[in-house]
Amino acid sequence: MPAKRRKLTLDDYTQGVLAADIGILSRAITLVESQHPVHQALAQELLTRLLPHPGNSIRVGITGVPGAGKSTLIESLGCLLCDRGHRLAVLAVDPSSSVSGGSILGDKTRMENLVRHPHAFIRPSPSGGSLGGVARKSRETILLCEAAGFSIILVETVGVGQNEITVRSMVDFFLLIMLAGAGDELQGMKKGVIEIADLLAVNKADGDNLQRANLACAEYRRVLGLLQPATPGWKTRCTTCSALQPETLAALWQTIEKFVTTTRDSGAFATRREHQAITWMHAMIEEELHHRFFRNPRIQQLLPDLEQQVAKHHLPAATAARQLLLAAATP
Amino acid sequence: MPAKRRKLTLDDYTQGVLAADIGILSRAITLVESQHPVHQALAQELLTRLLPHPGNSIRVGITGVPGAGKSTLIESLGCLLCDRGHRLAVLAVDPSSSVSGGSILGDKTRMENLVRHPHAFIRPSPSGGSLGGVARKSRETILLCEAAGFSIILVETVGVGQNEITVRSMVDFFLLIMLAGAGDELQGMKKGVIEIADLLAVNKADGDNLQRANLACAEYRRVLGLLQPATPGWKTRCTTCSALQPETLAALWQTIEKFVTTTRDSGAFATRREHQAITWMHAMIEEELHHRFFRNPRIQQLLPDLEQQVAKHHLPAATAARQLLLAAATP
Repeated sequence: MPAKRRKLTLDDYTQGVLAADIGILSRAITLVESQHPVHQALAQELLTRLLPHPGNSIRVGITGVPGAGKSTLIESLGCLLCDRGHRLAVLAVDPSSSVSGGSILGDKTRMENLVRHPHAFIRPSPSGGSLGGVARKSRETILLCEAAGFSIILVETVGVGQNEITVRSMVDFFLLIMLAGAGDELQGMKKGVIEIADLLAVNKADGDNLQRANLACAEYRRVLGLLQPATPGWKTRCTTCSALQPETLAALWQTIEKFVTTTRDSGAFATRREHQAITWMHAMIEEELHHRFFRNPRIQQLLPDLEQQVAKHHLPAATAARQLLLAAATP
Repeated sequence: MPAKRRKLTLDDYTQGVLAADIGILSRAITLVESQHPVHQALAQELLTRLLPHPGNSIRVGITGVPGAGKSTLIESLGCLLCDRGHRLAVLAVDPSSSVSGGSILGDKTRMENLVRHPHAFIRPSPSGGSLGGVARKSRETILLCEAAGFSIILVETVGVGQNEITVRSMVDFFLLIMLAGAGDELQGMKKGVIEIADLLAVNKADGDNLQRANLACAEYRRVLGLLQPATPGWKTRCTTCSALQPETLAALWQTIEKFVTTTRDSGAFATRREHQAITWMHAMIEEELHHRFFRNPRIQQLLPDLEQQVAKHHLPAATAARQLLLAAATP
């Protein structure tokens, strides 16, 4: 029987991940993604063992509207980093992928060169469930990848809905990929996304498009001057880049390295990670409390009518809330 | 014994509020603000009776950094509206007022003329408690004022913390008061505030300051062109104004009236109010679930150490969350 088919013990997982065995890492991620209670318990034990190991990683969130060229940019930047000897994991957070069949990273052929690189590990978005569920799995996958020695984690997400805020809460640095043509592009973006970014990169800044990209970049810089930066002690910047011009990607990465140095020195880096971990714990508690309440059959029975009455201004919101809380508490 | 000292029945409150008896309205608001369970139960009954009455009111949130001239502007605008025959209530939402002694509306002498106007009713921020508590009281005070026939409700808040988001969730229109000198001012503002505004007004646009105000306004318009509007079907605008020039305030109010007409016609106005009421109900439920959980002595005992372990990356967040949820569930 081939070794990879046998059931793995906690020790197998631990040693395999720490030894950067990609087959075992993949199975550990599958374990983390599983909804099965036994798998979840095992996954938590594994994470508890591995937690002290994640070292000097950099977690970078990348977002942008569809068509902004995220995948091509990640492929080019990823190859550049791997060629320099970095070990790179690329993950995706896309709750819609279970419905749409995977809009990002679903088709690994889009990152043909990177996927073949021995230093790279690419994992599509976990399927199924809410953003909260996908986010939990992705956070834990980050930890597994770090334990396996991947020192750069790129987390890609699509520029819709609540995704960016969630990804921002699990990364050190947040990169927003933009296109020239500015105004129209941004209209389609979720509110506040510029304000959670540490760097805006106007992509496809090459050929005929170069001048427009430079103009857009100047415009964004003006906007950034009016907004509060996402990270204390780091002024959010705007740059142009092109996957066709590796030197622009090298410069982009240099900015990220500068960010890491600056925030590690100031302590903002460590403070954010601590804060993220605690916030995440609280978010999971709130989510569970919410689910327990709203899965209660009595609540499910009462809710639609009460919501309707509140919406139609026939019942004060506080009264409806009390009725529901009382109904849930009654045995 | 003077009538105003006797204990009021539910009927007294109902009839008094509907008859626009300011003394009874004030006492009804005090009832709504009370933490006493008996008062709260009575307040909910009163609100249930009054709810169908609020008619064609306009709820306007007003915020801006300290020193932006909010009070003076509200006073001038308020007098203008009252002189036109409108009945106007001015409320404040400021959770810090219980600590600071009231930074807004606390000193009614700042609105000397308005406070004496027979068509105006001014109520300072409810004191004590969290933003959530202050917000609940303010929402219910809005309903009482509307039932008493006040057709324009101005809700003032200070430009710090989470206040604006909360006030946005209880008003139809959100006005952000700015100053020329732009960049620096905005740096001090909470992220995303521009994106929840329906109108930016660069204040103190008079005398030597006029040109700077116009420049700032042009700059903000550029920014607004890049951001998503706060209300579907309404392009967020920027204007200049000055409390010294009533015609600028008349123009400002005209913009608000245009907003109301536009969104009433499109249905966005009614949809937002329905949505706000339901969201509010859910927020109160979540808040109560949260409080019940974290007031649990067992949780209070376990939490500090678990938070510490999670922050130091010694324990996975999910494991800590589970331990707490389990501890709360154990009898």
